[in-house]
Amino acid sequence: MSRVVHVGAAQLGPISADESRADVVERLIALLRDGATIGCDLVVFPELALTTFFPRWYTDSFDGHDHYYEREMPGPQTQPLFDEAARLNVGFCLGYAELTPQGERFNAYLLVDKRGVAVGKYRKVHIPGHDSDEPWRPFQHLERRYFQESPEGFPVFRAFDGIVGMALCNDRRWSETYRVLGLQAAELILIGYNTPLHYAPDPDQNALQGFHNHLVMQAGAYQNGTWIVGVAKGGIEEGVESLSQTAIISPSGQIVAQTITSGDVLVSARCDLDLCSRYKDTLFDFARYRRPEAYRLITERKGAIAPPQRNKQGAS
Amino acid sequence: MSRVVHVGAAQLGPISADESRADVVERLIALLRDGATIGCDLVVFPELALTTFFPRWYTDSFDGHDHYYEREMPGPQTQPLFDEAARLNVGFCLGYAELTPQGERFNAYLLVDKRGVAVGKYRKVHIPGHDSDEPWRPFQHLERRYFQESPEGFPVFRAFDGIVGMALCNDRRWSETYRVLGLQAAELILIGYNTPLHYAPDPDQNALQGFHNHLVMQAGAYQNGTWIVGVAKGGIEEGVESLSQTAIISPSGQIVAQTITSGDVLVSARCDLDLCSRYKDTLFDFARYRRPEAYRLITERKGAIAPPQRNKQGAS
Repeated sequence: MSRVVHVGAAQLGPISADESRADVVERLIALLRDGATIGCDLVVFPELALTTFFPRWYTDSFDGHDHYYEREMPGPQTQPLFDEAARLNVGFCLGYAELTPQGERFNAYLLVDKRGVAVGKYRKVHIPGHDSDEPWRPFQHLERRYFQESPEGFPVFRAFDGIVGMALCNDRRWSETYRVLGLQAAELILIGYNTPLHYAPDPDQNALQGFHNHLVMQAGAYQNGTWIVGVAKGGIEEGVESLSQTAIISPSGQIVAQTITSGDVLVSARCDLDLCSRYKDTLFDFARYRRPEAYRLITERKGAIAPPQRNKQGAS
Repeated sequence: MSRVVHVGAAQLGPISADESRADVVERLIALLRDGATIGCDLVVFPELALTTFFPRWYTDSFDGHDHYYEREMPGPQTQPLFDEAARLNVGFCLGYAELTPQGERFNAYLLVDKRGVAVGKYRKVHIPGHDSDEPWRPFQHLERRYFQESPEGFPVFRAFDGIVGMALCNDRRWSETYRVLGLQAAELILIGYNTPLHYAPDPDQNALQGFHNHLVMQAGAYQNGTWIVGVAKGGIEEGVESLSQTAIISPSGQIVAQTITSGDVLVSARCDLDLCSRYKDTLFDFARYRRPEAYRLITERKGAIAPPQRNKQGAS
């Protein structure tokens, strides 16, 4: 029995601050239909796919941004997307800002099956940027103000005939993200992102954004023998240009599909989940080759700690 | 004060089974001198740089391979390399098979300073391949027969005005290698390797050896903000072709020097260790952004474990 999942990576272009939720959902539905037309089983949308990337703005009270958060999912404005998925028999993965009844704010990613039923949810673990206004920046990256770190780690879900994990944006830069999912036998990792091209703390990295984006996902795919679907919200949004480069990456680390423009567009690949074993059962047979006793610092230590200074006499 | 270390990556071509230790040491000295001529502070040799890659052969008793191991370092045959390093005022890093007085067999890497004095030693943690004869393979990869796994993990050493870590061959494919070194603030990671182009368990990977080699080292460098020097023993050795592709990689993940042939050759780069902070203090500020509590599986679990099967009714 084949385990081919036809995955559509549904890149979004910019969403302006005044674009209504209804208008955005219409764009999502158009991409969902595009995926259905070519036979996709699953259409993956990016991080914060319902709104503009609002963490770029500082306001004294973060309540001022409450209209960017979803208090229920689906809610009245997003229900049509779920209905259309069920009608088309196509699953999807949707990124959005979540405001819980307890007042918690998470950067969330929801996996919905072909019946339009939520089957998995992920909340962002690695929150990048900063938490107070930094006016020296051309624009803010206040994710640490508007979102809290998820305490739930990286769960996996049985869906689409395989084992599916999720991650969001900055998570993809951390090798631990992929490894924790890999240790749960993940075969398909869905990653949505919003990545401004300008990195204020070190603009020398700006020109490398595209290189780094693919590098970390390709390494994560190869080192864990898993498919990865990285989906961007790209283009120039409210004056800030973000990386596109949506890509579907095989367990070999090879890119098998990618976008070449920065607007709303879907690219797809038929992902044979059985190919994961080519890596999981050979070079990356974790049970045979890993050495967890040598990895203790990874969980025992948070920040880097340099070894003691040597006596100058011993210097080379 | 600048912290530029001029590093030479001294790739070796094949070493035949009957090549004498004295002849090999002469080749190493020639490369050391080549590095000294252009002002290198440190010349990095590959894994098992004194012998042919003997784990490709099975013999009933592994004592039959004892002549490939060093019982002392330096010994009479390797002393000339240490003497020449001191004379030239150039450090080096040397890979060799170690047989301890207790009869332990390690795949070792020794860091020697400009005075010709050993300042750090690493023993391979991730031993790839297999431990018994597998005649179906065109050649063996019996590292797990001829070497034991080091219990010492990944230490770092203060040397060459920076913090230096080491790894060997298969270690470079594991993200944990880089992270454990990165958590000790490593700024320069030296990696020697012998990588046959033919991977018997899945020959579809053969054509990707070069891609994978650079991918894992570039990701490791970027994700930990460290320089990496990957040095091959390449070319066709005793009928087996191995990857060359020696490369020096910056903390940005960019390759700044690489070999384009497969013989004895040195390429070099002036590695400014202060550039590491461009990554270590920003995007990869571990103390600020890492989430060790979400990484527990990395040390708690060795092999991958899939989640329980869902009830079929719940399948998408």
